[in-house]
This record gives sequence, C-alpha cells and structure tokens, in this order.
Amino acid sequence: MSAEDAESGNAVRCAVIGLGSMGLGMARSLLRSGFPVTGFDVSADAVARFAAAGGAAAATPAAAARGATIVVAVVVNAAQTEAVLFGENGCAEAMAPGSVFVSSATMAPDVARRLAGRLEAMGPHYLDAPMSGGAARAEEGKLTMLASGSDAAFAAARPALAAMTATLYALGSEPGQGAAFKMVNQLLAGVHIAAASEAMAFAARQNLDLQKVYDVITASAGNSWMFENRMTHVLEGDYSPKSSVSIFTKDLGIVLDMARTANFPVPLASSALQMFLMTAAAGMAGDDDSSVTRLYARLAGLALPGDKA
Amino acid sequence: MSAEDAESGNAVRCAVIGLGSMGLGMARSLLRSGFPVTGFDVSADAVARFAAAGGAAAATPAAAARGATIVVAVVVNAAQTEAVLFGENGCAEAMAPGSVFVSSATMAPDVARRLAGRLEAMGPHYLDAPMSGGAARAEEGKLTMLASGSDAAFAAARPALAAMTATLYALGSEPGQGAAFKMVNQLLAGVHIAAASEAMAFAARQNLDLQKVYDVITASAGNSWMFENRMTHVLEGDYSPKSSVSIFTKDLGIVLDMARTANFPVPLASSALQMFLMTAAAGMAGDDDSSVTRLYARLAGLALPGDKA
Repeated sequence: MSAEDAESGNAVRCAVIGLGSMGLGMARSLLRSGFPVTGFDVSADAVARFAAAGGAAAATPAAAARGATIVVAVVVNAAQTEAVLFGENGCAEAMAPGSVFVSSATMAPDVARRLAGRLEAMGPHYLDAPMSGGAARAEEGKLTMLASGSDAAFAAARPALAAMTATLYALGSEPGQGAAFKMVNQLLAGVHIAAASEAMAFAARQNLDLQKVYDVITASAGNSWMFENRMTHVLEGDYSPKSSVSIFTKDLGIVLDMARTANFPVPLASSALQMFLMTAAAGMAGDDDSSVTRLYARLAGLALPGDKA
Repeated sequence: MSAEDAESGNAVRCAVIGLGSMGLGMARSLLRSGFPVTGFDVSADAVARFAAAGGAAAATPAAAARGATIVVAVVVNAAQTEAVLFGENGCAEAMAPGSVFVSSATMAPDVARRLAGRLEAMGPHYLDAPMSGGAARAEEGKLTMLASGSDAAFAAARPALAAMTATLYALGSEPGQGAAFKMVNQLLAGVHIAAASEAMAFAARQNLDLQKVYDVITASAGNSWMFENRMTHVLEGDYSPKSSVSIFTKDLGIVLDMARTANFPVPLASSALQMFLMTAAAGMAGDDDSSVTRLYARLAGLALPGDKA
C-alpha cells in the first residue's frame, strides 16, 4: 500500500487521536507504511514519543484532523470518543466530506450508532471498528478489528486498516454492529477471567499444586484463552497491569446496561462484574485483571505465588 | 505391553465394571492390548455388545473382579462406585491383595478418600483416576486420566493405564487428589458452557449473525474450549446428548458442596449451576448440555438455528 490511494489518486493522510501504548503503535504502523501521520494526545510525553517516531504533532484534535483523509481515534471509552469528535476543537468540524473517522474504543452499540449518525450528517464517514489485541500487536500492525459501516466508510479507511491489522472482520453495513460483536467478546472474556480466578483460588483452597493445575487445565476441556493467558500472571505473582481491572468494570458494565435495556438476563456476566467490582473496591482497580484471583485468596486467607510467607 | 507383566511375571487380567459408551471403549482398548477382560453391566444389551467384542461376560461385579489383577470401574457417580465396590456381590470381597481398583467416576475428593481407605484396609490398592475425553477417545485408548494414589496402586494399574490413555497425569500419592483436579476442571467447564450459552443468546438478542459470532469469538480472546466445541451444536440445532445437562447439575453440585464445606465462595459456579438447573427444570435434563442456550433463547423469545420459523 503506498501513500497514493491507487483507486482515487488522492493522497492518503492519517491522523491518530490518542497516542498511548495502543495509539502510538498504530501510528507507527501507519508511518511504516509510508503515510504522513499527524497526532494528538493530552499528554505532552505521549506527543513527544510520537514526534520522535517521525509523526507530526498537533495541538488539538481538530488540528490533527484538518486535511486528513483517515482519522483514527484510539481513546478509552465512548465519552472520550464523543469529546474527540464533538467537543471543543473536536475533529468533526475539521474533517472534509469523504474522509473517514475510525472509532476503536469499546462502547455500547447505540452510542456508536448515535456518534456515527451525527458525524455522517456533516459529510464524513464513520467506521465502527473496535479492536482486539494488545500493544505488541498494535506495534506490529497485526491487530484484529471487528468493523462495521458503509461500503464508503470501509473503502475510505482501507489503506489504514491494511497497515494496522492482521485480521479485519467486516461485520455489517451499520455502525454499532462491530461494537455489538466486541461486547459479546467482552462478556466472555470477563466471565472467563473471573472463572479462572475462582477456579485457581478454589484449587489453592483444596491444597493443589497451582502449576500442576495450570498444566492440567490448559490441556483439558476446562481451558479458555483467558485462563491460559492470565493465570501465568498469578503463577508469577506479577499483578502489574497488562490490562487493568478497571477495563472490565467498564466493559461488563456496558454489557449489563445493554442486557437490561433489552430485557435480557445475563447472570454469569452479572456475577463476574460483581467480582471485578469487589477487586476494585479492595484497592486493585489499576492492577492487572488477574487480581480477581488475589481477591478470592484474600477473602479466604490463602497464600498465592509471590505472597510473603 | 503384553499380557505378561514384565516386572512380576504375573499375568495381567482385567475387569471392567460398567460397559456404556465409555466403558465399552475402554474394555475394547484393553482387549486390543492382548489382556483378557471380564465385564459386567446392569444392561443385558451392553453385556452383549461387550461379548461380541471378545470380552467374557460376568453376572455380578464380584464375578467380574474374581481373579482380575486390575478392576476398572466406569460408572456415573460416587454412589454407583460405592455399590460396585461394597454393595451386594461387590468387587471388594472378590479382589485379591495386590490387585488394584481404578475408579474413573467424577466424585468429591472426600468420598474418593473414604472409598480408598475402606478398600485398601482389605488388601487391594485404589487408584483415584477420573478421566477426560469422550467415547471416541475411550475407543481409541487415548483418554486423559487425572490420577492419584500410592506408588503400588500406580504400578499395579500401569498395564491398563497404558492401554486406555494417551495422557496420564500423576497428581499425588493420596486418593482424592485426582478427584480434586477433576472438580477444578468441571467448575471451569460448567461455567464456560453457561457463559457460551449466555453470550450466544445475548448475540441473538442483539440480532447478530451467530455463525459470524462463532467465527469471531473462536479467533479472539473470548474463546474457550467449551465455546468452540459446544456452540457447533447450537449452530447445527442439534441437542442430542453428546454430554447431558444432568452431568453438570451433578458435577457443579459437587463443586458447590465442596466449596461450602470449605467456607469458600464460588459465585460464578453458583450462577452456572442455577442455569443448568433451570434448563433441567424446563425439561431438558437429558439433552445436550448446550441446551442452556435454548433456555436463554426461550426465556427471551428468540429463534435459534433449527427452530421452526
């Protein structure tokens, strides 16, 4: 993919709003593909790292988006996405008709639909594109995106998507569908982290060797992607945040809101959310989400790897 | 492995108590390895299938066990295992000192310890050996066993274990440890089936394409062994029992009992058990455990694949 869009002959120019570990990796993937990238972040440190990587710093979201054909928002939630678009010096007023806003934050489908409708009424396209994969995948340009939007939105975003993703799911023509698939994934991911934590602490209560538990479960029908990934943190006694408890209090909260709005019961997700909230309440909101295991262990007075004897 | 035990020079003679789909496959694996196998089942049809496969039919558990060096019990639960051992015409009275009882039913660790203590006081060894893998693996001699027991119990059972398993975990020297590992696996397996069902029905409620949900989730961090396996049944609309709802009302019931005895909270397992109980209460106890998805769908008036339009 070159900086010239082969189909239109128009130059591709990218903006990235939000230059944390995910956004910086995505911006660097875009730069590696030869696109000019303008970036904005509220943190001066983040902007400095981006500039050192070859990006052009902007002072506001609007300044970053002005002249860009593709604006990628890599912020934490719906509120930040709305502020980036429609807040003071937001992107929407600066984006040209035919350009596209790629929204990667996890949010409720109805919010994605509302933001998309408001932006598209002004001329630009909106691609609902929540993602899966951590900072390492972002840096390598190998994210998974669960995207939905109009054919025009996909076409406009295509050069950037090719640079940032290894797997792109095209999940429908309406913004909100990508968001809904992401929430189904987050329901399962959250329940599986809580279940892994419950099972590991239950095993400790039964005086089982936790390394053997890990070996047996990861080779058995009780395995999950999250058990296999997160329980290594418990075995190492390392709760520095790779992904924090607060992500799942947020995302399972969205799942519960969606379910209640739809008159749909989600008792497993509800139990899991309560365990994440207990873990946050106990002071571990900013720690790794495998800290749910510590919450169970503390309740029951159990020692885990890394605990002082 | 030959029918002669290389270490002792004594002939290996096997008995299999319980000749359902699992027990018959295990008996055939033993026969294929060259061991004489005597079998018992309460069902005359099951005994006939076993005889047709080359086994020697016995009229009682005691008759099957008499002269056997290895007795493998492949029954449903702790109560049946206790009856096979110590009920009328039970195995225990017929087993010679130095022979070994291999117990494969899923049960609470304290029950396994109690049965083992009573049998070992009479002379035979007891191997606590719950298993993982279905009828196909049993037929191929490729089960996984989560075993614990004395060195003498492992040594006495070794020829049969080699014939029946692809993976043998030696998890400790005390009966009950294998059972405890199995219950940790069942906690996770049960929660994951309920979570998969909740997520799939939630996705249907959000009007998502369920085949796409399957494709996205199985390639994402929300995946579990159970989601990947059981949700194919939902996509095919096939609820004929590969493993039934009643297995998980039983096994999660054991988990909840163990946890309550240990003053240990298991809110995820508790929520999952309630969903299996609702599914059983709605008339699906004997159907495939993926029927939990149907329970959610019926509650919410949602159509699933295979439902009449």
